[in-house]
Amino acid sequence: MSTTTKKPKSDIEIANEATMKPIVEIAENAKIPLDAVEQYGRFKAKIDTSKISGTANAKVVLVTAISPTPAGEGKSTVTVGLADALQQLNQRVMVALREPSLGPVMGVKGGATGGGYAQVLPMEQINLHFNGDFHAITTANNALSALIDNHIHQGNELHIDSRRIIWKRVVDLNDRALRHVTVGLGGPLQGVPREDGFDITVASEIMAIFCLATSIKDLKQRLARIVIGYTYDREPVTVGDLKVEGALTLILKEAMNPNLVQTIEGTPALIHGGPFANIAHGCNSIIATQTARKLADIVVTEAGFGSDLGAEKFLNIKAREAGFEPSAVVIVATIRALKMHGGVAKANLVEENVAALQDGIANLAQHVANIRNFGLEPVIALNRFITDTEKELQAVLQWAEANEVRIARTNVWEEGGKGGIELAQHVLEVINQPSTYKPLYELQETVEQKLVKIVQQVYGGAGVQLTEVAKRQLAAIEKNGWDNLPICMAKTQYSLSDQPGLLGRPTDFVVTIREIIPKLGAGFLVCLTGDIMTMPGLPKQPAALRMDVAEDGSAVGLF
Amino acid sequence: MSTTTKKPKSDIEIANEATMKPIVEIAENAKIPLDAVEQYGRFKAKIDTSKISGTANAKVVLVTAISPTPAGEGKSTVTVGLADALQQLNQRVMVALREPSLGPVMGVKGGATGGGYAQVLPMEQINLHFNGDFHAITTANNALSALIDNHIHQGNELHIDSRRIIWKRVVDLNDRALRHVTVGLGGPLQGVPREDGFDITVASEIMAIFCLATSIKDLKQRLARIVIGYTYDREPVTVGDLKVEGALTLILKEAMNPNLVQTIEGTPALIHGGPFANIAHGCNSIIATQTARKLADIVVTEAGFGSDLGAEKFLNIKAREAGFEPSAVVIVATIRALKMHGGVAKANLVEENVAALQDGIANLAQHVANIRNFGLEPVIALNRFITDTEKELQAVLQWAEANEVRIARTNVWEEGGKGGIELAQHVLEVINQPSTYKPLYELQETVEQKLVKIVQQVYGGAGVQLTEVAKRQLAAIEKNGWDNLPICMAKTQYSLSDQPGLLGRPTDFVVTIREIIPKLGAGFLVCLTGDIMTMPGLPKQPAALRMDVAEDGSAVGLF
Repeated sequence: MSTTTKKPKSDIEIANEATMKPIVEIAENAKIPLDAVEQYGRFKAKIDTSKISGTANAKVVLVTAISPTPAGEGKSTVTVGLADALQQLNQRVMVALREPSLGPVMGVKGGATGGGYAQVLPMEQINLHFNGDFHAITTANNALSALIDNHIHQGNELHIDSRRIIWKRVVDLNDRALRHVTVGLGGPLQGVPREDGFDITVASEIMAIFCLATSIKDLKQRLARIVIGYTYDREPVTVGDLKVEGALTLILKEAMNPNLVQTIEGTPALIHGGPFANIAHGCNSIIATQTARKLADIVVTEAGFGSDLGAEKFLNIKAREAGFEPSAVVIVATIRALKMHGGVAKANLVEENVAALQDGIANLAQHVANIRNFGLEPVIALNRFITDTEKELQAVLQWAEANEVRIARTNVWEEGGKGGIELAQHVLEVINQPSTYKPLYELQETVEQKLVKIVQQVYGGAGVQLTEVAKRQLAAIEKNGWDNLPICMAKTQYSLSDQPGLLGRPTDFVVTIREIIPKLGAGFLVCLTGDIMTMPGLPKQPAALRMDVAEDGSAVGLF
Repeated sequence: MSTTTKKPKSDIEIANEATMKPIVEIAENAKIPLDAVEQYGRFKAKIDTSKISGTANAKVVLVTAISPTPAGEGKSTVTVGLADALQQLNQRVMVALREPSLGPVMGVKGGATGGGYAQVLPMEQINLHFNGDFHAITTANNALSALIDNHIHQGNELHIDSRRIIWKRVVDLNDRALRHVTVGLGGPLQGVPREDGFDITVASEIMAIFCLATSIKDLKQRLARIVIGYTYDREPVTVGDLKVEGALTLILKEAMNPNLVQTIEGTPALIHGGPFANIAHGCNSIIATQTARKLADIVVTEAGFGSDLGAEKFLNIKAREAGFEPSAVVIVATIRALKMHGGVAKANLVEENVAALQDGIANLAQHVANIRNFGLEPVIALNRFITDTEKELQAVLQWAEANEVRIARTNVWEEGGKGGIELAQHVLEVINQPSTYKPLYELQETVEQKLVKIVQQVYGGAGVQLTEVAKRQLAAIEKNGWDNLPICMAKTQYSLSDQPGLLGRPTDFVVTIREIIPKLGAGFLVCLTGDIMTMPGLPKQPAALRMDVAEDGSAVGLF
């Protein structure tokens, strides 16, 4: 735990220098029976959840953030640091995180396992294939596509209208060229030509099902319910109609066991599932969270991007589905990011700018209000960067005091758990009060009522408008009786609105619902807003260009 | 080891009933240092080859077969049974097999791990994701595709002609609808439109590189040499030009360690890599074979389909590349398959038909001649099926005697190693004689000379003809100085010729070379013949329809 002021090491340097405990030792300390531990190398294991007894009754602490900016907030870092701090305070704690997607790893981010001295390890393996879970999901998704196209090619007994297939293929990569494709070209022996497209794996309905299923049996039932498209008579066609839910379950079976790893400080971490929060529901798996709740007294978990995305879905979808009440919510903010929300360009963030900071705090204020709208009391983690000035820090602390919001400074990147003790003490106070959590909407409300509640009470907007396409889709959804499902918004992470350029706390905006896609296996309706895309592209200089394997066999270029 | 005559159990039933030893015990028995063993669950491990010392000097026994028929020959089964028999004869033996592809597993075969009491275990995991090797290869392949398309989209500094990209995407599935696709549709923000196609992962050049690389360093150099396409000036563009060989190496690094499992009788098996032998070079990895050669005195390995495909490439490509001399070759044949080569329909195979069998033996004769053309002495494994009659068996034995070919009856499906003792004794006799192996052609011969030698001396044909496309491709290959590479024929497995319907021992046929594709990373020229396709399709009733997970969590529908 370095507290010196010399030039900080990179995340991968710190990770490579850390001494890990054998994963069986981590498991033993966490009271996981050894016959439930399937080692995957020395420092990773899959946990056979059928061998974990006990009641899932740990308190759940959710870590969310303000609207992200290129300045970085450090949500995963704070999640890990908070858990380490709780462990230092002698709490029985477990971290429950999402697995990184190779798309961002190869694209812009280079890794997603926390940072500095608040990381989960082994960093390299978690960032790359990590026990194959995403590969299993990709394979199940694309096996279904192949089986659909083969069904049509072999006579189309189910009368599937190839123009009305809504099931897309996936890859776990950023690959814009696959967004819109035509398949089945080349003549009668090569399948039936049709328009298709690829999403990134983290946006697959199978990823959502993987994260929401409570058992292998539930997994299979959810898979069977997936609507892959419609017949010529506009009747829905399901995976159950194709009779392949058994094969898909078999492909996913091994991956359904959550993955045990450790933080740099040896806190046990279950990392499992990883839908993005902008184009999917953004939470780790229910199986992992509930397994952690059987093993520990406190589970620290995170949901993607700001509270308008991952946390909203955590609280409206995941917690409702899993049947638990979250006990506390941490909102991560940084001076740098708040200044960007106040209009400062990235290049100028090193300069003190209290006026811009004051403007940017409006973004934080909306996220605080969001959490309170769910009946929960937030704790702000003001996550320190080296360029923060005392005047800037005081401005945020004073705002918090004036608005009666709990706030703690954190310095976990540099100090690990020690830098999160103040935050942990706040969290312990909050979780010892009874939870007053309630979802924002009831399932039996109309789709438009649910949408309006999310836009008004979480985004701070005026209302919604549906495109003609979305209106037709909604009519079909209502006709089929699917309108009592929760909503999974697909929206830009950069703004509380559906327009990425509107930073801070925009008001009076109307959110456009471009499409509404039923995901009956996941059990929600995906509402696409603005220009959000379910397949990202690579930047001009992808992180892949910096990656390598060193002479000694170690990874280079993961951040 | 059941030798009763009651209705035989299915392969998965036998596999599920078998008692496996912990993989660390298998490793210990094989004298693998424990710090080289990375457990993947209790019954699989990856072997860190950097921790295996010693000289790779075990004798290599290759198992090949006659031209396959729907009747089945049992090549993997005999490979496993032979190794078990050698172990029963107190030999230090190791099996080196290919990993199954999910394409055939989900398609027609349902599994590829041997059969009966001659299987490798754990059957289910080996047939499904098996430590993620193929997923890593798929990911590296498709990451390269995404990086190519992104390079073009972001300004195309290398002037890649998008009409002349030869690098295709892959999935490890049978998916005919992906053979010919267009990508990059949807307008200027969605990439550059172009024609593309998907191969099955086992046909990827990265799979070939994975299997032919001798170290991580060699892997990276080979990846850098891959030609992905051509510039507008028809100059080759390589992965090295794109500067992404480091990232691809990183993606493949973990997978490069071979996988240790066991046979039902506890013989150690390294299973690693798995190119198909009809559309790729058809052999397991050099790293696995050479690691096994350090650990054992005899390595039993196989190459795909008949001796015209996998064995030809094993002997002309892999053995030359790895620098070892094979010591013996087993050719697996069955009465049933020989009768099909003699013109009997599958439905009539249960009836005795010595006349048809005599005709079908011509196919076996060509495979025997093939092996002798490489300076090696074959041993025929006449692999028993329940419907064989003594008269039929005697007909084959008499033919072998008359032609002075070693032959042994095997009954390994029912008896395990015990059913392969006679074969093992023949093999021990052969490998104790000095190897007289030599490749069929020298690398400096012209491409057409090499092609003619393969067609005349291995297929028994008259010669080759090149299409106009192939002629133009060959001219470019010669201009670029790539013509001194070995040939990797892509040809139907069902016939010694390039026409799947010509069973038995066709003569006087001319093989059409449709295309010649340089694979500089793998280090060979792929020559596509006849109608062979690098992406299979699913049958009308895919094996996937029978697959399931039982209430107790066990796999259903793998064969």
